[in-house]
Amino acid sequence: MMNVTPSAHKSTPAVVVRRLPTGLPTPDDFAITEVPVPALAPGEVLVEVAELSIDPYLRSVLAGRHLDDPGVAPGDVMPGRSVGVVRESADPTRPVGTWVVAETGWRAYAVVPAAATEVAVVPDDVPRSAALGALGMPGLTAFAALERQLTPRAGETVVISSATGGVGSVAGALARAAGARTVAVVGSAIKAEDALRLGYDAAVVRTDPDWLAALRHACPDRVHAYLHMGDMPTLHGVLSHLAPGARVSLCGLMDQYNGGPRTMLPAGAIMTARATVYGLVVFDHRDLAERFWARATELLREGTLTLHEERHHGLDQAPAAFARLMSGQNRGKVVVEVNPDAGSR
Amino acid sequence: MMNVTPSAHKSTPAVVVRRLPTGLPTPDDFAITEVPVPALAPGEVLVEVAELSIDPYLRSVLAGRHLDDPGVAPGDVMPGRSVGVVRESADPTRPVGTWVVAETGWRAYAVVPAAATEVAVVPDDVPRSAALGALGMPGLTAFAALERQLTPRAGETVVISSATGGVGSVAGALARAAGARTVAVVGSAIKAEDALRLGYDAAVVRTDPDWLAALRHACPDRVHAYLHMGDMPTLHGVLSHLAPGARVSLCGLMDQYNGGPRTMLPAGAIMTARATVYGLVVFDHRDLAERFWARATELLREGTLTLHEERHHGLDQAPAAFARLMSGQNRGKVVVEVNPDAGSR
Repeated sequence: MMNVTPSAHKSTPAVVVRRLPTGLPTPDDFAITEVPVPALAPGEVLVEVAELSIDPYLRSVLAGRHLDDPGVAPGDVMPGRSVGVVRESADPTRPVGTWVVAETGWRAYAVVPAAATEVAVVPDDVPRSAALGALGMPGLTAFAALERQLTPRAGETVVISSATGGVGSVAGALARAAGARTVAVVGSAIKAEDALRLGYDAAVVRTDPDWLAALRHACPDRVHAYLHMGDMPTLHGVLSHLAPGARVSLCGLMDQYNGGPRTMLPAGAIMTARATVYGLVVFDHRDLAERFWARATELLREGTLTLHEERHHGLDQAPAAFARLMSGQNRGKVVVEVNPDAGSR
Repeated sequence: MMNVTPSAHKSTPAVVVRRLPTGLPTPDDFAITEVPVPALAPGEVLVEVAELSIDPYLRSVLAGRHLDDPGVAPGDVMPGRSVGVVRESADPTRPVGTWVVAETGWRAYAVVPAAATEVAVVPDDVPRSAALGALGMPGLTAFAALERQLTPRAGETVVISSATGGVGSVAGALARAAGARTVAVVGSAIKAEDALRLGYDAAVVRTDPDWLAALRHACPDRVHAYLHMGDMPTLHGVLSHLAPGARVSLCGLMDQYNGGPRTMLPAGAIMTARATVYGLVVFDHRDLAERFWARATELLREGTLTLHEERHHGLDQAPAAFARLMSGQNRGKVVVEVNPDAGSR
């Protein structure tokens, strides 16, 4: 664990990309260094990063394939979102002491435009890191998928891949709250246990040789809705077992991000099931943020939604945490504590 | 041309499947023979076939891949729909002389359950064959795609593959009537001419080496809606040029029906465009039949919708007509006249 105390914020520890990963990222693809902290221009704030969010979409950013994102070059600070506190402010809307979620990149301190930050509203009885997961972008992603695409009805069967991750764990809770049966597809036996503990009705381990038979067994009425964040064999397996009128959200293409083959869908299965397949990009659904936040907070308090997090300690652990996430070894939403006492000084 | 006059309807000329085609069907895959006409049971009618509909879905029926259809075995009469007149009736709802559309198979006379027939309602100033095309199942398919899936708005660009066929020619007219720009993707230069004559704003020949550049040029605002009935390269090309929020209807998989590789869609293109992809099966949309019929009749009378048919003469020409259709040589909706003077005797 690294001791993070920049002197007068003239520089900050940061994780830079040493080389663009091929296939699964490894810690060697990154390096820890010190980068300058510029002086504030009007409208900017200095954020002390409390906790960093480690998310699968970062892999596609590294591959230069994330929407219109320009990508990353060797030597750049690794991009990423975090929750932190404003330590210096040149913007009246974000005074010193405000908790925000911001695109800081992987560093301990960052200067960002105040307008690009969001105030981190987290109830007192919920950990601050929820702003990065269940109450943050992953949670909103799940809410948008359920609300606008998968629209599960009571008694329907909803299958969720990467079921115990940042998006999946919230999606499962929302589907159960709608009265649906939920079936988790996960990458290991230990994650299957996690899934059942989180409340899924059944869990299937996609690496088991007989996983497709297990999925069919777990979905005797076939699959009415599917949230895809997994690999192509999972997608093809689930598509072969759709109920008529099924809805499918394409939310993440894990293997493609890791440099695997482009994910392809069989058109025949879509036609046979008269299915609807949606591309999901959370940024299109920011208008849902308030409704989402109210609902997720309610479900957290009821206990229908459980925060499921894997915490790492120290900015220097971010590369290893990312490698764990992208190889599917993580258990739950991955966060890295950078300045654990941020805001208390 | 065959002289079709069965004596007292004890037997009827029919086209049977000699062997299941591999790849493109050829006339040799079929044989003309005489098959018995059974006596009517209560609830049945004897239909004299006036015109036979030759449609792409029949290829997937032959491949045993058409929805829940049990498929066809060598020796079976070739399935298919036709418009014809009731010559004997054992059902009060379909008296002798009623014009109907029915699943008769490829034969001159057929005994079918009255309940499985539809009364063929065609205005006096429109050819009877419209009941098989623009006012029939292909037209309803186009209407359902436009109404429930593609939902074009004025000024949007709608691309239609197999654009001059039974479904495509109606879809183009409906999209233009909604104020959209329409771009045809077709298989030959002569079909491109047909497309422009039918009213398309532009036409692209998918077999041209630079067809994708031509498509992009024809769609400067990208593609807002796409009706797919073509081959996989067309699908991939159009998906690479979608506008954000685009809609795609999967209506036919021509190359897959002919025994080509399974049609696959790139998930990344769907996500990047935040597109919605629908499987379309016309039987789910029978509730639209009345609205469709009224709208299509109106557009026919206005001249926005033109009947575009390729007519063959004689039941014995059905196999060759089918081969032309499946190899893309047809020009417009394919019909075969079987008993041209049906109903006038």
